[in-house]
Amino acid sequence: MRGYSSPDKTNKDLVKERNGVSFQPLLLTHVLDNGADQTDKRRRIEQLALSDPVIMEGPDYSYLSVPEKYSEGVRKHVHCIKKVKEHGLTDNMDVVTYHGVVFPQEAAPLSMHDVAFKPMFTIQASDQQKKKWLRQIENYEIIGNYAQTELAHGTYIRGLQTTAEYDPSTQEFIVNTPTLTATKWWIGTLGKSSNYALVMAQLITQGKGRGLHAFMVPIRDMNTHEPLPGITVGDIGPKLGFHDIDNGFLQMNNIRIPRENMLNAHSQVEADGSYSPPFNDKIMYAGMLGIRAHIPLMCARNTARACTIAIRYSLVRRQSELVPGGPEPQVLDFQTQQNKIFPSLAMSYAFWFIATRMQDMHKQGMEEVMQGNFSQLLEMHALSSAMKAYCTTRTTKAIETCRLACGGHGFSEASGLPKLYGNAAAPATAEGEATVLFLQNARYLMKCYEHAKSGSAMDTFSSYMTQKKERFSGDVSIGSMIEALAYRAEKVVARAAAQLFKWSKQGMDRMQAWNKSSVCLEEASIANAEYVLVKSFADYLSALSCDAAVKNALQRMCSLLASYYITEHAGEMVQGGYMTEAQLDVIRLHLTELYSVVRPDAVAYADGFDFSDRHLCSILGRYDGNVYEKMFEWAKNYPMNKTDVHESYRYLKELKTNSKL
Amino acid sequence: MRGYSSPDKTNKDLVKERNGVSFQPLLLTHVLDNGADQTDKRRRIEQLALSDPVIMEGPDYSYLSVPEKYSEGVRKHVHCIKKVKEHGLTDNMDVVTYHGVVFPQEAAPLSMHDVAFKPMFTIQASDQQKKKWLRQIENYEIIGNYAQTELAHGTYIRGLQTTAEYDPSTQEFIVNTPTLTATKWWIGTLGKSSNYALVMAQLITQGKGRGLHAFMVPIRDMNTHEPLPGITVGDIGPKLGFHDIDNGFLQMNNIRIPRENMLNAHSQVEADGSYSPPFNDKIMYAGMLGIRAHIPLMCARNTARACTIAIRYSLVRRQSELVPGGPEPQVLDFQTQQNKIFPSLAMSYAFWFIATRMQDMHKQGMEEVMQGNFSQLLEMHALSSAMKAYCTTRTTKAIETCRLACGGHGFSEASGLPKLYGNAAAPATAEGEATVLFLQNARYLMKCYEHAKSGSAMDTFSSYMTQKKERFSGDVSIGSMIEALAYRAEKVVARAAAQLFKWSKQGMDRMQAWNKSSVCLEEASIANAEYVLVKSFADYLSALSCDAAVKNALQRMCSLLASYYITEHAGEMVQGGYMTEAQLDVIRLHLTELYSVVRPDAVAYADGFDFSDRHLCSILGRYDGNVYEKMFEWAKNYPMNKTDVHESYRYLKELKTNSKL
Ligand SMILES: Cc1cc2nc3c(=O)[nH]c(=O)nc-3n(C[C@H](O)[C@H](O)[C@H](O)COP(=O)(O)OP(=O)(O)OC[C@H]3O[C@@H](n4cnc5c(N)ncnc54)[C@H](O)[C@@H]3O)c2cc1C
Ligand SMILES: Cc1cc2nc3c(=O)[nH]c(=O)nc-3n(C[C@H](O)[C@H](O)[C@H](O)COP(=O)(O)OP(=O)(O)OC[C@H]3O[C@@H](n4cnc5c(N)ncnc54)[C@H](O)[C@@H]3O)c2cc1C
Repeated sequence: MRGYSSPDKTNKDLVKERNGVSFQPLLLTHVLDNGADQTDKRRRIEQLALSDPVIMEGPDYSYLSVPEKYSEGVRKHVHCIKKVKEHGLTDNMDVVTYHGVVFPQEAAPLSMHDVAFKPMFTIQASDQQKKKWLRQIENYEIIGNYAQTELAHGTYIRGLQTTAEYDPSTQEFIVNTPTLTATKWWIGTLGKSSNYALVMAQLITQGKGRGLHAFMVPIRDMNTHEPLPGITVGDIGPKLGFHDIDNGFLQMNNIRIPRENMLNAHSQVEADGSYSPPFNDKIMYAGMLGIRAHIPLMCARNTARACTIAIRYSLVRRQSELVPGGPEPQVLDFQTQQNKIFPSLAMSYAFWFIATRMQDMHKQGMEEVMQGNFSQLLEMHALSSAMKAYCTTRTTKAIETCRLACGGHGFSEASGLPKLYGNAAAPATAEGEATVLFLQNARYLMKCYEHAKSGSAMDTFSSYMTQKKERFSGDVSIGSMIEALAYRAEKVVARAAAQLFKWSKQGMDRMQAWNKSSVCLEEASIANAEYVLVKSFADYLSALSCDAAVKNALQRMCSLLASYYITEHAGEMVQGGYMTEAQLDVIRLHLTELYSVVRPDAVAYADGFDFSDRHLCSILGRYDGNVYEKMFEWAKNYPMNKTDVHESYRYLKELKTNSKL
Repeated sequence: MRGYSSPDKTNKDLVKERNGVSFQPLLLTHVLDNGADQTDKRRRIEQLALSDPVIMEGPDYSYLSVPEKYSEGVRKHVHCIKKVKEHGLTDNMDVVTYHGVVFPQEAAPLSMHDVAFKPMFTIQASDQQKKKWLRQIENYEIIGNYAQTELAHGTYIRGLQTTAEYDPSTQEFIVNTPTLTATKWWIGTLGKSSNYALVMAQLITQGKGRGLHAFMVPIRDMNTHEPLPGITVGDIGPKLGFHDIDNGFLQMNNIRIPRENMLNAHSQVEADGSYSPPFNDKIMYAGMLGIRAHIPLMCARNTARACTIAIRYSLVRRQSELVPGGPEPQVLDFQTQQNKIFPSLAMSYAFWFIATRMQDMHKQGMEEVMQGNFSQLLEMHALSSAMKAYCTTRTTKAIETCRLACGGHGFSEASGLPKLYGNAAAPATAEGEATVLFLQNARYLMKCYEHAKSGSAMDTFSSYMTQKKERFSGDVSIGSMIEALAYRAEKVVARAAAQLFKWSKQGMDRMQAWNKSSVCLEEASIANAEYVLVKSFADYLSALSCDAAVKNALQRMCSLLASYYITEHAGEMVQGGYMTEAQLDVIRLHLTELYSVVRPDAVAYADGFDFSDRHLCSILGRYDGNVYEKMFEWAKNYPMNKTDVHESYRYLKELKTNSKL
């Protein structure tokens, strides 16, 4: 039963809720999976892991110390690698599905080998290099990572200090960590697991700096796993999440590696040290965007997890009064509770559908790139920056709000939410800090705006900039609300552009003017992102053919999100007389009325995500709603309760002696 | 040197910053401490702990497992109890100061004994009961807690299920946990430390339910510390924060306690079981408000901690480009970075000064209450609900934003921010969930509004409701901006009142109408809270006599906060034509210009909080700015790095064998 407890023991309130919904959750699942056959396939793969005792019968993660979590993670990852092979899972998405059950919330210890090292290697290695290393990499004989960030530099890649100087006399590179601040830091899978590092270093040859290049640096003995001479490597210590990943540090002291260890598909160093720069680095760049395109889906799933937990628990939790003397209501009946959860729920669909669109765009874009056509690249980059920043930051907020919606029990690890938070928070910073990415996107928006002023739209999503805005139509159709969001986006983009212009006119240089406008530029990027999300959500729905009730349910979510954004940014709507106060009140009412309409279907939305209990790791979010029994059981099993008198009682005892003095 | 490392090793950027500030941080410290003598006193007390090796030389908390953290906490707490006695610290605030160094971020394991059990006992016990127990409580021979919340009920106290039935034949109460859901849960200091519990239970006597009363229930043997027969007690398991507190569960099965174990200062059960209800429970109630009045100060300090860390690190961190080809800027030079940190910084002062005001109000209120005058109680309750909810929720957001402002390193426990977050998040839920408190406050605001409509103000803070609003004056003086915030508050309060009225007119009963307006009611409470915070901040400053440069610095903070709130809620400002778009732009510009003005003083604001490094537990926030050296040292010392090859290598090795197959 997909990791669910048996249905006959289901909490009565949940049973009742499930009988009263307007659509079949499974049909919603099919939409999210992109077809019933895909749902079946996904479930089949998940079942392989769900029925594997080596995976399912491990210790409860929340009881373990951080190093124990890492160790347990390695145990599972190694098992998982064998099983993936055994089950013949070759498609990347299938492996991700399988991993989803093995590592329901954490990323796996060796994940940087899979999601960064291998793809980067594949993009940057020549055929000869692939021939030499790829088999070992695929077999995990070589375990690697992507070692770019240093103690003092992350965002600013040009500032990286690690050097690789070519020595033609031996045809080797000498790799060095010249200062403490050049220590590689934060590198996932590096601390304890890797025997190779893919080191980004400043290439120096013939006395000249040639910029960053990637080097295959062996760091541990292939037999003993001991660090090699000249290598200082270790774990960077405890952190907010990802407890089972060994993010590590690395110092290299005169490490000599052969010339062929510089990945040279795009640029080469000849035997004599002469250097040929990459002919076109856009291909490499496009490949890296693929990694980023995956993030919104991860965000969608994490937001969906948090909402599933909060919704189910809010249906089981009865508290307070709603009708004088009546039974205690389910807390989801409180409007404020709906207001905490439903906007995040709506966002999770918006993230889901933009992710689908971005993956399609990326696939198509890559095909074009391969044919030498780079025209889509700029838009892809801009969109993926904005969406990466927006989805990750909103996801952590959503998880946090869902945690708060669970009251006291949300604070317990039994809710699954603290851990989900810690892990989901990482991508808001890693692989591109959110503010930095919003500002990258804003740079593109400023270009679009200039284009628009001269009358032409630069791409589909910025076409709103060329359309003259009328007054708000006054109705709450999704079309009008999208127009309102476009109005707002245009307004903030224009404000940012005006600021930039003003500062430049006052004689500031470009970068100063940019910095002095950057709060507004970031807002512009966010306003644009919210427009794009709702627009692409609506577009997706209009092209979608599926069960009518499900479509209806999704349209409600889209409308809910649009009205939520509008009321959140009422200021821009009313300014310039676009919307009247009365119209705004209509939208406010529309939003809270939608909450009431959505309320009876809440459990169907939650079930529609089709997470097994294993995926949620949450007692509050259990499919069967047996929250209290299982909380008690979980607490009883907590290792600290193995003895009745804790060893620290030896200190408390001193107080007695003390007070007698 | 107050736990600071020696100043001659200070990071050069910080030295330069400290030489360039417009005011002396110590003079700001005096304002925050409420006098130079108070600063001296506080520092003297802190020094007692800072120079105590038993306290300072404990293991690094972030390396420990959760049970180890608890154990280490008990060790320190016991030492601390002895030392507090030895040093003759009797004033409560002095003990809090001392604790601040011993437990810089965590609450202490026995803290519920100190902050809930003892005060509750004192308020509710009769003189005879005090005679019997108080000495043992003060000596920590009895270690207790406040056991109110149950597995299924927290917010809704009337729903608690634990019973205490009086048996006149033996003159005992029989205390019972009738169902699993009645299990006491979340009770701090209960799990492993307490030998008594102050149990809130439904009193039953002469066959009738008499409501909740407090009972002294012995739960562990005073000699062996083993749970007594009929008692099931333990720790509820890992959680988001407060790792060193043993929040516990408790089940009681027919526990017989003598009649005198019901705390009976206010209501009594006679030998025959006849019951006299409390004559006036307002005194008890007023006492409980005292606990809540302390929370805004805690929030102020936690927000200040996060800002200190983020500011210092942002001055040490150099990254990216600001002038083409120029040196890398300190990241605090980015406007977006200022926008992340400075509004929170301003809030920390606002919290600080409202806390002072609330404590004064509470003191005065209690004196009046003792003389039978309860007129201030309603306002005190309303204000403390709103401020508790507002300050706690904003504090967690501030910490999170500061964490994000630290980029990758913010995610490491070396930053101190993940732990600060986990601990600061607890009070947003515990002792009154935020939404529930905002709604309580809204109830009061609706009363104020009705009053105001009939022409009279109910209290000082709601007098704005009676003043006819003009247009915005157009200048950015603090007076005009406070008027604008009042305008907004009035506007949202009025909107909520109108909604309530509308639903009632449509025939809904009071509770339903309330629920259907509750999103707006919560907004009203928040809008009012923001007005109150800025108003009381400005009031405090106008009454303050201190160094002119410091006053100036604080006025900037007040103005910054006002303009931040106005731009955050532009919608309400523009609606009804109160503010024009151009005026709003002036305020937006004022805000970002203030960022630039505040920037060179940032380090002085941070230093002015006068936290020792011990208080911050943050490598990023070190006074000397030696961030990178110490990060590396910290990581090297991480226990996982004691061996070069981790024990989990045994799993990785299998991969090699596997790939050879
Ligand atoms: C969990 C985790 C895993 C990671 N894994 C890896 C890995 O496997 N390999 C790897 O190489 N790296 C890894 N990293 C590093 C990560 O990529 C960087 O931390 C990230 O890119 C952010 O850079 P930073 O730390 O330098 O932040 P900083 O740039 O120092 O950010 C600090 C502050 O400065 C601001 N700022 C910086 N530049 C600008 C600007 N130009 N304009 C405005 N504001 C600016 C930021 O907005 C932020 O508020 C990981 C990090 C984490 C947290
Ligand atoms: C770290 C920690 C320490 C604690 N220590 C103690 C202790 O020492 N002793 C003790 O007795 N208790 C303690 N507690 C319990 C704490 O007091 C409760 O958890 C808290 O009061 C919240 O109540 P709840 O858990 O019932 O939340 P719930 O009321 O179940 O909240 C769930 C959701 O329902 C909503 N909701 C509930 N009622 C209403 C309403 N009327 N209107 C609108 N929305 C509503 C809430 O807003 C929330 O979103 C502790 C809790 C924590 C987290």
